[in-house]
Order: sequence, then C-alpha cells, then structure tokens
Amino acid sequence: MAFKVGLLGLGTVGSGTAEILLNPTQRHPLLREIEIHRVGVRSAKPRSIPLPPEIITTDLESIVTDPAVDIVVEVIGGLEPARSLILKAIAQGKHVVTANKAVIARFGDEIFTAANQAGVYVLLEAAVAGGIPVIEPLKQSLCANRIEALMGIVNGTTNYILSRMQMEGSDFDAVLADAQKLGYAEADPTADVDGLDAADKIAILSSLAFGSRIKLPEVYCEGIRKITAADITYADRLGFVIKLLAIAKRDKTATTDLDRLQVRVHPTLLPKSHPLANVNGVFNAILIQGQPVGQVMFFGPGAGSGPTASAIVADILNIAAILKVGRDAVTHADGTPLLDPLLACSHQEYATIAPIEELSTRFYVRFLANDSPGVIGYLGTCFGEHNVSIESVVQIGLRDQLAEIVVITHDVREGDFRQALAEIATFEAISSIPSVLRVLSSEE
Amino acid sequence: MAFKVGLLGLGTVGSGTAEILLNPTQRHPLLREIEIHRVGVRSAKPRSIPLPPEIITTDLESIVTDPAVDIVVEVIGGLEPARSLILKAIAQGKHVVTANKAVIARFGDEIFTAANQAGVYVLLEAAVAGGIPVIEPLKQSLCANRIEALMGIVNGTTNYILSRMQMEGSDFDAVLADAQKLGYAEADPTADVDGLDAADKIAILSSLAFGSRIKLPEVYCEGIRKITAADITYADRLGFVIKLLAIAKRDKTATTDLDRLQVRVHPTLLPKSHPLANVNGVFNAILIQGQPVGQVMFFGPGAGSGPTASAIVADILNIAAILKVGRDAVTHADGTPLLDPLLACSHQEYATIAPIEELSTRFYVRFLANDSPGVIGYLGTCFGEHNVSIESVVQIGLRDQLAEIVVITHDVREGDFRQALAEIATFEAISSIPSVLRVLSSEE
Repeated sequence: MAFKVGLLGLGTVGSGTAEILLNPTQRHPLLREIEIHRVGVRSAKPRSIPLPPEIITTDLESIVTDPAVDIVVEVIGGLEPARSLILKAIAQGKHVVTANKAVIARFGDEIFTAANQAGVYVLLEAAVAGGIPVIEPLKQSLCANRIEALMGIVNGTTNYILSRMQMEGSDFDAVLADAQKLGYAEADPTADVDGLDAADKIAILSSLAFGSRIKLPEVYCEGIRKITAADITYADRLGFVIKLLAIAKRDKTATTDLDRLQVRVHPTLLPKSHPLANVNGVFNAILIQGQPVGQVMFFGPGAGSGPTASAIVADILNIAAILKVGRDAVTHADGTPLLDPLLACSHQEYATIAPIEELSTRFYVRFLANDSPGVIGYLGTCFGEHNVSIESVVQIGLRDQLAEIVVITHDVREGDFRQALAEIATFEAISSIPSVLRVLSSEE
Repeated sequence: MAFKVGLLGLGTVGSGTAEILLNPTQRHPLLREIEIHRVGVRSAKPRSIPLPPEIITTDLESIVTDPAVDIVVEVIGGLEPARSLILKAIAQGKHVVTANKAVIARFGDEIFTAANQAGVYVLLEAAVAGGIPVIEPLKQSLCANRIEALMGIVNGTTNYILSRMQMEGSDFDAVLADAQKLGYAEADPTADVDGLDAADKIAILSSLAFGSRIKLPEVYCEGIRKITAADITYADRLGFVIKLLAIAKRDKTATTDLDRLQVRVHPTLLPKSHPLANVNGVFNAILIQGQPVGQVMFFGPGAGSGPTASAIVADILNIAAILKVGRDAVTHADGTPLLDPLLACSHQEYATIAPIEELSTRFYVRFLANDSPGVIGYLGTCFGEHNVSIESVVQIGLRDQLAEIVVITHDVREGDFRQALAEIATFEAISSIPSVLRVLSSEE
C-alpha cells in the first residue's frame, strides 16, 4: 500500500522534497511507501528532477481534488492561491503538509477549524526554522511542560546581515545590498528586515507553546533597518551583541490577574555569554523555557532547499505512519476520525496579548548632546522622575562635535520610559536620540 | 476514559514524574486523562508526593501484571529487576516508558523483539540527554534524512568535571572529590568517568540514527581519568577544549565496501569555535549531521528530576495519544496490533562496527624528553616512517628538567600511529609519554 502525495510547487523546496522522496536509500524504510502521484507547477518548463512528465500539471486545483491523493504538500508560498488550495484539500479529506508560515500565521484559525471538522492533519514543521525540529518537539517531546518562554533567532537573512555588520563594522545599507547580490536577501527585503517573517513564525510558535490562537496584528514587530554600525560597536564594548529576537512569554509584569502573553519581534542587545549570542550567519536557534524541563535550545539551518525538504518529508512520513496503523478506528459521532491530540491543533481560544507599553524591559538609548556638564545629571533626573532606573551611563566620545552618551536602563515599564524619552527630546542640550533598542531583561 | 499508569520507582525521577501528572494546569490537556494507578517502591517510607497510600506497594511485579494498567513506567534504574519487569510488562501487553539506558543498551534486542511480538511500544526519550528532545526528533522530525554522523556531550558529570578543570586549572582527582561532595558525581563514579554511561547512550542513539542494532561491547570506550590540568592548559593554548565526546558515524575510512559504523566514546580536543566547545557544566548537547538537513544541535539539561520527568511524561502522553485514536484498527495476521513504524523499533540487523585500529583520526601526544636537540627530528622521522603526518610540534617548556613536547597529527590511521608510538617509547631520549588524546578530525 502506497501513500500518494500531491505536490504543489516544484521550486527550491519542492525540488528538494521530490529529491528525498525519489532517493529512499539509507533513509527510513517508510519512505518506500510514499509515491509522488502528481506535481503542480506554475509554468511548464524543463526540470532537473527526474519525474515522469505526465504527472506534472499547471492545474493545481485538479491535484487537491484528485481522489487518489492522500497528502497534499503545499510549497508554492504566498497567500493566494496557497490558502484556497489548502482549504480545498482539507474539504476533500486530504491531509496537508505546508511550509507556508505566512498563510498559517494569518489563516491558521480558519485552516485548523476546517481540518478538525474534516478529521485531517495539517502539519507545518517546515514553516518555522527550516530543518530544525521545533514544531514537533513542542507538540510532542515537550508536551508535559508548562512553557514559560520561547525566544529565538528565526530569520536567517537578518541574522546574516547583523552578523556581517558585527564582523565587518559595516552599515546596514551596504551589507543589505551585498546580501541581495549574494542571494541571502530578496530584491524586496521587507518581510525579512522589517521583522514580518519573524512575526509570522513567533505567532505560530507561541500558539503551539501556549495552546491558544494568536492574532497576528497584535504581535509587536520592529525590524533591523535602524541598527547602525555605531550601535553594534557600542553594544560590543558594553558586552552585548545585537540580534533580531522573536520572543513569546507568559506575561508576569501585569498588575491584573489576566492570563496574558507577550509576543514580540525586535532587535535586542544580548549579553555575549547568552546561548543565542553565538548563533551567527544564516543559522537559526530557538530557546524554550519550560517547567520542569528548564532551558532547551534547538540550533541549525533555518532555510534552504535541503533543510526545509527534510522537515516537509518528516511531516509526510508522520502522516503516513498514522495512516498505516489505521486512523479511522475511533470516530466522533458524525463519523469524522478522531485526531491525535498531540499532533492536531485542538485549542480555539485567542490569547490575550499584553500591549507593548505595559511591558517591563531594559533599554539601550544613544543620545547626541552638546557637551554641557549638566546633561548627564539632567538625564538621570528626568529618567528618575519617570521611575526609569538607570544601570549605566557612558559618555562614549565625540561625534560631529557632539557628546555621544549611551544609557542602559534596568527593567522599566515601556510606557514610563517612552514618556521620559519624549521629555528628554525637548531638552535643548539634547541634539538627537539616534537609537533606542531593547536589552534582554535580566530575568530572561 | 483515563489511561492508567503503573509507576515503578518513586525516587528523584519517579517523584518528578508524579509531580507533573498531578499538576496538569497550563500543560497539555491530554494530561488530565492520565491517572497514576499504582506506584511500586523498594521500601515503604514517608514521601513528599501527595499520593494515596493505598496505591503504593513494594510488590513491583503485581503492578506489571495488573490488568488495569495501560502503561508501565520504569524508573527504578539498574539492570535487575528492571529488565525482568519490563519484559513481564510487555508480555502482559502493556506499553513501557523507561529512562533506563543501561537496560536498553544491553537488552534492547530482547526487549524490542518482545515488544514487536506483543504489539506494544517501548519509549525511552528520558534514557538519553534527560530533558533534551533527541530520541523523538531522531525517530520522527529527522526521519527523512540519511544520518551521517552524530556527536554529543551526553554525560553531565564528566562535562561538569572537565569544565571545572578548565576554569580552575585543577587536577582530575581534586575536582572529582569536590563533585562527589556536591552531589554531581556518585560515590562510585565509574559509570560516568570511565565513559560507560556515555557508551550506553551512544549505542542507543546510533541504533536509532542508523537503523541497526549495536553490540555494546563493540563500542570503543575511554574515560577522562587520565586527563591532566597540564593537557587542558596546552590544549587551550593551541586553541582547543577537551570534552568527553560520544561519536557515531558512517565509516568512510574503510578500504572495503562494507557498510560500517564508527561508535566510540573518548576525550576529544575540540576547536574552541566548535558548537560543542561552549557546552559547559552539567549541560548536554547533541549534534546531528544528516543529508539533506545539514547540522542540527540540541542543547539542554542532561539530567535531574524535572528534565528527566519531562521526557518520561512526554512518552506517556505520546502513547496515550496513539491509544486514543485507536491503535487496534490494523493488525498483523495473528491479531497483534500494527505499531507506528516511526515510533516502534523495526530494525533487527546488527551493525558492523569498525575496529578502533582502523579509524583515521587526529592525535595530540605529549612527550617528556631529555632536552637533546635531536628529539624533535627523531619524532618527525619516526612518525613519517609510519605514515603519520604531523600538523604541529611545539616544545612547551621544561617540566622536572625534561623538555615537554606536544605533537598534533593530521588524520592518521590509528594502527599506524600506535606502532609509531610504541617505537618512540623505546627511544632513550624519551623519558615518558604522559598523554595521548584524540583531536576532532578536520572533516568532523
């Protein structure tokens, strides 16, 4: 008995997926029971993958409605027609494997509700952190834990850019241009450098970690465009590296008893000794803090044909394994098969996300000021009046005949900090405030 | 419908397991369907865990034969009665969850053959690397890969000792004594410091990674007793740290076409930039190299009540999830339920393990010699005559009026190297050869 796959997309990830399926030697024996039944492509052109031409079609819809197909693999990317094809496949009773973080982060509620009604699985290991096992470990290996926090470098492009800025002392624009030339950044780099891709991923991860749905627009998101070579240098001197972190955690700063989450993406100053500080280049890493497991970290290649295909095919095999032992044995009253409660998405409530103004975090601020002896005193007083406790003030030197002053705060309420900053900005001795960045909180 | 657990053992790990099962809040909802039905202990004494006294018994056998028990959790450790109880539970058609690396590494063939015949699962996430998900990721998330190599720090005690030796410049005996006082090492530290515990774990991991059974006595095993403060210092100067590594890989050094594995445990000089070089203290980490995923690393707490219990309860929930969707739907001809091919152990062939003499690896050797100008020339000539190519020779200084010379070789055949060394040992200018250690091969 073979399980038939309908593959939507034969680009980088689709080709990588086909390559594994066509080469089962020294891989799990279950692979021999998977058959590529049909492949959907945007346009007919010669391909390097040795697939019989008659199984390739540009009619994607005919694949998701093909009665012979057991598992639809969606690797075309983008929102449409991906979303509609996934929903149509589900409506036809097909299991779905997808690498599409954008669709899942935006339409996960619709998709998983449909999947539960149809009694099919929608698996998405490849949607976050490429080849690094993290979705399945969260669902299965760590399922006994109360997850407290989850923090990661989940976008390879921005990590590559920040790593090169750190190594070479270059500015953002120059490194971005070079990364685009080398193929590490897209022609339109918005999704990566503005943190949107990371926001999609942390929305998915936090939904799994905390068992609740996440409204993507509520995820606070700040990219890396404003990071300068100067900030990287000063951070380095103070013992930090700057990384774009995606963070999700149970919110303990609330004065209410509300069960809230923090879910956010922003550049962060990390102490050099932090496990994520040494994750460089296009690599990804995710740190999960659970009770009672403590901290575990997953590290590896976050993108690329091979790693992503590894995750896609794992999901295909996981579904095949379930089908093999007979998944229709236990059904709901309406005859819909019961789904494995660890692998299916069972939560339907939406999480309450704490507004960013109410968070407590540490800040790094860089001021350019007229070198008047009173400025540091003024900063200290003004921050103090707004309950912003300062950890260090360092006058780094002079730039354009202005004194460059870097302040690092203790954990402070973001709202208080912003008020203080607005007041400081009006002070005549302050020429400008070129950078405001978050510093990993001491309890994180 | 509740799934009934029979818990064998209420020590550190057993108590941690009970604690999770009794506190399902903010954990996976499936936990509420797990019931601690009976608990077996060695001796009746007051416990801190709030369990009804009537479910606690010293008659362990009555638990594995109790018809109401669905899943037997074995956390008593040691070879017997653990092995017999596991086999009896299987014979009674019960699923088994165990943290017992020693039993699985020695009697895995017997246990998994029995489990397959009975149609039950034996899960063992807790047996390797405590709370770090690695067994399930290998079985499921990475199942599409051709695993090429697997390398890890899988023993917390030795890593703690080596990390302290590195930090403090202390010698092995002093740190071991202190680690014993602090509870990081056992009164009889043999299993840890001689590498036996790591050998059990790498035998289990390589069996999963390469889909073949491993004969434990064929695993080469060398502990850390011989490591001196001097070697750690010299390694540091040359850019290395010393770690006890467990390594398993497909053997490519063979001149034959045999499909062989290397499986070994030994102290290893690692370049400081290697991902495993910064894993310190009681932490564990495992690096897996697969095609096409590339390198992924799993890092976290390798032992302790909470982390180990996290893995145990994950296995319990994974079995419960399978039972919930109805696992008896598809059976073999004799009525035995078919097992999930990713979660069950299906391989029965034994791997061929390459003898250590045939491996190709780099070496670090420390010589004490009379400071005769001819010694370095002699070493070079003698190694050369045995096809041992040298990467560097450094005369570190003088010790007891003898010249201390450290040689690092390129990748060489272990057999050739040992012959050269035997010849060098007879040379009159050589006073002694205090240390011979392996260096991570350049291709690893």
